[in-house]
Amino acid sequence: MVPIEYLLNFLKEDIPFGDITTNSIIPDTTCRAVITTEEPAVIAGLEEAGVLFRYHKINVGTTVVDGSTVRSGDVVLILQGDARTILTLERTALNIIGRMSGIATMTRRYAEKVHNVRPSCRVAATRKTCPGFRILDKKAVQIGGGDPHRWSLSDSILIKDNHLALVSLKDAIERAKACSSYHIIEVEVASRDNAVEAVKAGAHVIMLDNMSPDQVHETVSSLKKEGVRDRVMLEISGGIDEDNILRYASEDIDVISIGALTHSVKNISVHLDIHPQK
Amino acid sequence: MVPIEYLLNFLKEDIPFGDITTNSIIPDTTCRAVITTEEPAVIAGLEEAGVLFRYHKINVGTTVVDGSTVRSGDVVLILQGDARTILTLERTALNIIGRMSGIATMTRRYAEKVHNVRPSCRVAATRKTCPGFRILDKKAVQIGGGDPHRWSLSDSILIKDNHLALVSLKDAIERAKACSSYHIIEVEVASRDNAVEAVKAGAHVIMLDNMSPDQVHETVSSLKKEGVRDRVMLEISGGIDEDNILRYASEDIDVISIGALTHSVKNISVHLDIHPQK
Amino acid sequence: MVPIEYLLNFLKEDIPFGDITTNSIIPDTTCRAVITTEEPAVIAGLEEAGVLFRYHKINVGTTVVDGSTVRSGDVVLILQGDARTILTLERTALNIIGRMSGIATMTRRYAEKVHNVRPSCRVAATRKTCPGFRILDKKAVQIGGGDPHRWSLSDSILIKDNHLALVSLKDAIERAKACSSYHIIEVEVASRDNAVEAVKAGAHVIMLDNMSPDQVHETVSSLKKEGVRDRVMLEISGGIDEDNILRYASEDIDVISIGALTHSVKNISVHLDIHPQK
Amino acid sequence: MVPIEYLLNFLKEDIPFGDITTNSIIPDTTCRAVITTEEPAVIAGLEEAGVLFRYHKINVGTTVVDGSTVRSGDVVLILQGDARTILTLERTALNIIGRMSGIATMTRRYAEKVHNVRPSCRVAATRKTCPGFRILDKKAVQIGGGDPHRWSLSDSILIKDNHLALVSLKDAIERAKACSSYHIIEVEVASRDNAVEAVKAGAHVIMLDNMSPDQVHETVSSLKKEGVRDRVMLEISGGIDEDNILRYASEDIDVISIGALTHSVKNISVHLDIHPQK
Amino acid sequence: MVPIEYLLNFLKEDIPFGDITTNSIIPDTTCRAVITTEEPAVIAGLEEAGVLFRYHKINVGTTVVDGSTVRSGDVVLILQGDARTILTLERTALNIIGRMSGIATMTRRYAEKVHNVRPSCRVAATRKTCPGFRILDKKAVQIGGGDPHRWSLSDSILIKDNHLALVSLKDAIERAKACSSYHIIEVEVASRDNAVEAVKAGAHVIMLDNMSPDQVHETVSSLKKEGVRDRVMLEISGGIDEDNILRYASEDIDVISIGALTHSVKNISVHLDIHPQK
Amino acid sequence: MVPIEYLLNFLKEDIPFGDITTNSIIPDTTCRAVITTEEPAVIAGLEEAGVLFRYHKINVGTTVVDGSTVRSGDVVLILQGDARTILTLERTALNIIGRMSGIATMTRRYAEKVHNVRPSCRVAATRKTCPGFRILDKKAVQIGGGDPHRWSLSDSILIKDNHLALVSLKDAIERAKACSSYHIIEVEVASRDNAVEAVKAGAHVIMLDNMSPDQVHETVSSLKKEGVRDRVMLEISGGIDEDNILRYASEDIDVISIGALTHSVKNISVHLDIHPQK
Repeated sequence: MVPIEYLLNFLKEDIPFGDITTNSIIPDTTCRAVITTEEPAVIAGLEEAGVLFRYHKINVGTTVVDGSTVRSGDVVLILQGDARTILTLERTALNIIGRMSGIATMTRRYAEKVHNVRPSCRVAATRKTCPGFRILDKKAVQIGGGDPHRWSLSDSILIKDNHLALVSLKDAIERAKACSSYHIIEVEVASRDNAVEAVKAGAHVIMLDNMSPDQVHETVSSLKKEGVRDRVMLEISGGIDEDNILRYASEDIDVISIGALTHSVKNISVHLDIHPQK
Repeated sequence: MVPIEYLLNFLKEDIPFGDITTNSIIPDTTCRAVITTEEPAVIAGLEEAGVLFRYHKINVGTTVVDGSTVRSGDVVLILQGDARTILTLERTALNIIGRMSGIATMTRRYAEKVHNVRPSCRVAATRKTCPGFRILDKKAVQIGGGDPHRWSLSDSILIKDNHLALVSLKDAIERAKACSSYHIIEVEVASRDNAVEAVKAGAHVIMLDNMSPDQVHETVSSLKKEGVRDRVMLEISGGIDEDNILRYASEDIDVISIGALTHSVKNISVHLDIHPQK
Repeated sequence: MVPIEYLLNFLKEDIPFGDITTNSIIPDTTCRAVITTEEPAVIAGLEEAGVLFRYHKINVGTTVVDGSTVRSGDVVLILQGDARTILTLERTALNIIGRMSGIATMTRRYAEKVHNVRPSCRVAATRKTCPGFRILDKKAVQIGGGDPHRWSLSDSILIKDNHLALVSLKDAIERAKACSSYHIIEVEVASRDNAVEAVKAGAHVIMLDNMSPDQVHETVSSLKKEGVRDRVMLEISGGIDEDNILRYASEDIDVISIGALTHSVKNISVHLDIHPQK
Repeated sequence: MVPIEYLLNFLKEDIPFGDITTNSIIPDTTCRAVITTEEPAVIAGLEEAGVLFRYHKINVGTTVVDGSTVRSGDVVLILQGDARTILTLERTALNIIGRMSGIATMTRRYAEKVHNVRPSCRVAATRKTCPGFRILDKKAVQIGGGDPHRWSLSDSILIKDNHLALVSLKDAIERAKACSSYHIIEVEVASRDNAVEAVKAGAHVIMLDNMSPDQVHETVSSLKKEGVRDRVMLEISGGIDEDNILRYASEDIDVISIGALTHSVKNISVHLDIHPQK
Repeated sequence: MVPIEYLLNFLKEDIPFGDITTNSIIPDTTCRAVITTEEPAVIAGLEEAGVLFRYHKINVGTTVVDGSTVRSGDVVLILQGDARTILTLERTALNIIGRMSGIATMTRRYAEKVHNVRPSCRVAATRKTCPGFRILDKKAVQIGGGDPHRWSLSDSILIKDNHLALVSLKDAIERAKACSSYHIIEVEVASRDNAVEAVKAGAHVIMLDNMSPDQVHETVSSLKKEGVRDRVMLEISGGIDEDNILRYASEDIDVISIGALTHSVKNISVHLDIHPQK
Repeated sequence: MVPIEYLLNFLKEDIPFGDITTNSIIPDTTCRAVITTEEPAVIAGLEEAGVLFRYHKINVGTTVVDGSTVRSGDVVLILQGDARTILTLERTALNIIGRMSGIATMTRRYAEKVHNVRPSCRVAATRKTCPGFRILDKKAVQIGGGDPHRWSLSDSILIKDNHLALVSLKDAIERAKACSSYHIIEVEVASRDNAVEAVKAGAHVIMLDNMSPDQVHETVSSLKKEGVRDRVMLEISGGIDEDNILRYASEDIDVISIGALTHSVKNISVHLDIHPQK
């Protein structure tokens, strides 16, 4: 279910007082239009664009679905209806598709790289999303085959260094467990010893933060030596890029989280072409 | 004036049911905290972050202002107050600063390149912003020294190819002029002849869309030959990147608009460190 | 595109807890209804009323469109559907039509007067609208044949006396130009000399504020003498009413802006009659 | 208690993307400013303007309060604080004061006329307000000494001709009484007989709709003859203006409701002057 | 007319980031579903649930209407459409039906008890509703046969002890009457003398607050002795429960208001069963 | 951090057009006021009430904090400030405190009962909350010592019978795991065999739905026999009340979830008394 309120807010941002160009120059007529990619991509955002156009009484046809791999020049959405409406919605729809496809495409690329080396290891997003677009940034990661990680501060417990500056690791996990039994408890650690301590204290997930591949290796070894590796999920985070990701993926870890998936997005280029109807 | 409603909406997205980590493990205490850059940047978003923290009764100190050039490791914001509040706001504030600084930094880089070649030529944004973040995307471009271009479909008239598929250039400009005397009228053209026609019809700005530098050169020559070059502002748009921008800037144009400034942003890395107070 | 959210907000204002009269006394039945004018008018608001009724599943028929001249007793909207819904929406719809028609009617009257004397001169609105109704106040001016002027503080630059109390005219225009190339720059002046200075500094529009017709005449003469009359659009503003407007229109000016168009509106009377269906 | 959310919505309408004039040209400085009337008035809206300015950290001083009679040139609000903020809020504040004072002034004039003839008779508003501004339109009527009548469709029961096209008068009143004991029941009648019937059926208020003074006289006589005049409040409505109001007020009635109080408002002119601080 | 905005807000509360269970495991398919009661009840909320489902394109059938008496096991709503949508809406719809039916059922029980003893006496709600759900709490009371009393602080005047700590009874009623002629004026009194005083001062309704049945009896007697009993409506309030209500109902009173109707609700159990479609 | 927007929405519901009683009769004065309980309780909602009063410039003092056990007659909040403001906020604040305290009190009672029998076993809420009040219903459960369970459909995965009507248990768990690694996966089962199957498929939590204590006993035995009891958390749900809860708590289970905690709340009575200031 796509939340129409979000989409209407995005539109409102673009037309506080209407589309003054279209309103002043375009006659009351209908047209066809197509949205086409300008580069290869994992397409995303078609569902949202479709909901937005249909809400405004535009007929929407499509030959591909979100998550499909498309080539440059592929038509991804076919529209028919009131010309003024299509023109007014154009940029909002393209911005949604462009950004979501950019995220899905990058996620797919990372996920496939990792999968080739360690099929059980997942690529995950972070909360470093564009404010106002969180839900769609995360959905795009899912479409690309990544794990959305927690959606917000309300859905998993993640104890980070800044928390541990104010409370001991042991107290933190104990209080978290006392507070809720229905939310994953993850702890960010920067050392082998803290990792062992966190697992023993009952964390479900350990985030190895900003460790080098060697440090990751040693930490996993320690956990195995203590016989607790399988009690937890292991996530690595911080400083991962396309160059070093395979080195990390070669370690016995479960998730690699990558802020860049949503904080350094390169939109996929898509455009809309109007075809007047005779 | 920074619109607090926007900032609260961004925050709400991160805490639909509160920060369950902080709420369950952090005691009722105060702390100091600093926000620090992790790479050189033109910093932006400090005003918004400051408004957000102050609204929640956190004291905010700063030594740099939006638009300053900072180095890696520079402290850009100093906070003091309720620890739980600072932890809950951390990510929202960092996401705002990170994205706005990313945009300001890229804009400054492009603007300086162009300025060295043609001081009178400006770099401008487009409407290819992240939905939900338009106002801050555009503000970041301004902070970086760029022109925000039109904010939305309501503040300038821009007649594009899709409009011209439905109405003649002459009618379009005539209707636009009849409709409003207080909004710039810009026309996107793809050929030399259309450029001349548009100027003669009274457009204030001509956007030369997806032209090669040579095509731009010929178009400007034609306008000069017709004696109408100075009647309009000339914008080039489409396909501009760091490699070819200087070639474009060497032509007699007024504005280069670049979608990448806001649609392909690489956030600047910033982090927040809590310092407990004794 | 009519923003349904605005219309629903207007409705909500009238039914915080529903229409307690209709809910308690009217049976579940359908009816026909017509909306009729009670005085001659340039009708406006029919599009908005139609959208509001249709959103609530009422069939809407119409024989006239916004901007039409109607006589007293003309039917402007024909409705058919759930009786309770029509009764609940009645007042909201009538208030929209009444006010918008009042504005369109007055605007048309002023615009025609001016047109007879100086066909190139337009009548324009100001930002003196009813808070909460800005977008429809401005649209009604357009329907009446007027220029909406700027919609808000975000779409054109207008440097007024209060700005000039804090910054010099020269600096103001320079900074405005440096900030944006896509927004009209207008300057309000109270003297001939300031008018000349503003034009020379590059303003697109000069507002001659509260000048007598004679002062306007002298100012235009000065601009012509300096050879800069044609570089700018000239607007007069302040103190214009139906008595003196022709005297102003006889001068060589481009726009006459009139606050009364939206700040001193006399609604057109319209009413709705229910016809039970057998 | 003044609802800040309303006031912020009004402001947002004026600055979807900020005040681009002020933001680009005005330095970071403080100033004094005064708001002054340009014509005699019953002033209103000062409380709302004050709340709006104070919310944005502007100091507000005042020498008169809402409901005071002011002369042309009287200072009604004194402001001190950030110059950019004052400039950005100026128009929103003036629009509120201007409209509310216009309503309060007209209401006072009508109320005093009526009071001179029949001190027990009140002047009342209708629901013919500007959509989006209802609460302040009604409050302005109160400030002017008028009765706000019902605020919305949710707070009193008013059975009108359109209801009676679908249900009998007797059934309508019976159902209304069965539904709620805490809301006034008013019935609109167009004839003497209906008036008597409505009173006998238990209405609290009878609205004599569009009757001539003579018809009103006869209706009151009939009610007296039936001995039921004192059981109800009598309201006259429809077609009342400054010319005929005294003729109506001379009859034995309780309330005269006048749509023009809010549907045909002439704003009071007020302006704001900035005084730079040395 | 059911306000869809309320219902969408309720839904949003349950899916800040979508229904992650349904989204991840349920295929794109349609199904039938029925909503069934688990205990006898006066059913309510079907209209709201129906509007919510229909807004999301689910077909809705029903055999009973709000206010019907249903037995345990009765089907109250039949749904058909997209399976994911039905699953996502399930809990929101059931919570609305459950609470509204709980209120309607309790109200009906009280109302019938009272009616058996004193047919002219009504049971009424108070403003002790669940914040955020006021309008539906009150509507459920109406469906159960109760009087909603005032909807909010804006629709009737109720002068309570806390007001009378700051103003005399006489002044309070006088000011209330001077302020509005279209709103019921009720006064809460704790003694016989105050009741008499309040009636004489012109209150429409007297609330006998926290009086024992004997005190009520004496107060009514006093009012009769003074010959003013029939001038007012008499409401008793405070401390009424199923045990003592008949004792109160035996007195000559008009309304018994009961906070428990909305502040101590026991939801009616209802559940939804999915039936896959072959 | 208490979300002021929620609290303002609750208030707005009570004053669509202001508090017409207070506005018309209460002078501009300050007062003291206290909020007092009328029965023993675990108090909750004081933080929210405090935030609401402070936002409106009322001074707030308190001697107890949320979660404290209070007796009848205890003062829980002391207010000082503008009398009109306190009167207008009174009911909204009391409704919040009343409901939240009702929930906290019932939760504490259940939690203590269970704790006496099985200290490791927790009492949990469900999503059967009052629409519009979810976040505070859940917070009140926490204050009472209960587990909030999942806040919404977005924060844990709970596979229920209606899902399993459309997908096999095995597929459901597999898809859920593939979708997200950061959310608890719970499965509702109605039989011993399904419980074993669900554990083996990798669910984190098993909800034994509507089982009798004997069935629970047998299911736990089966899980132990299979050696998988300790791999999961066991929740029982459905049909638990104060009579049978101890019988359930005597089994080896981890959580007992109880819809009644939020769907059948009896508010705690609290009232506010104004004390005029001399």
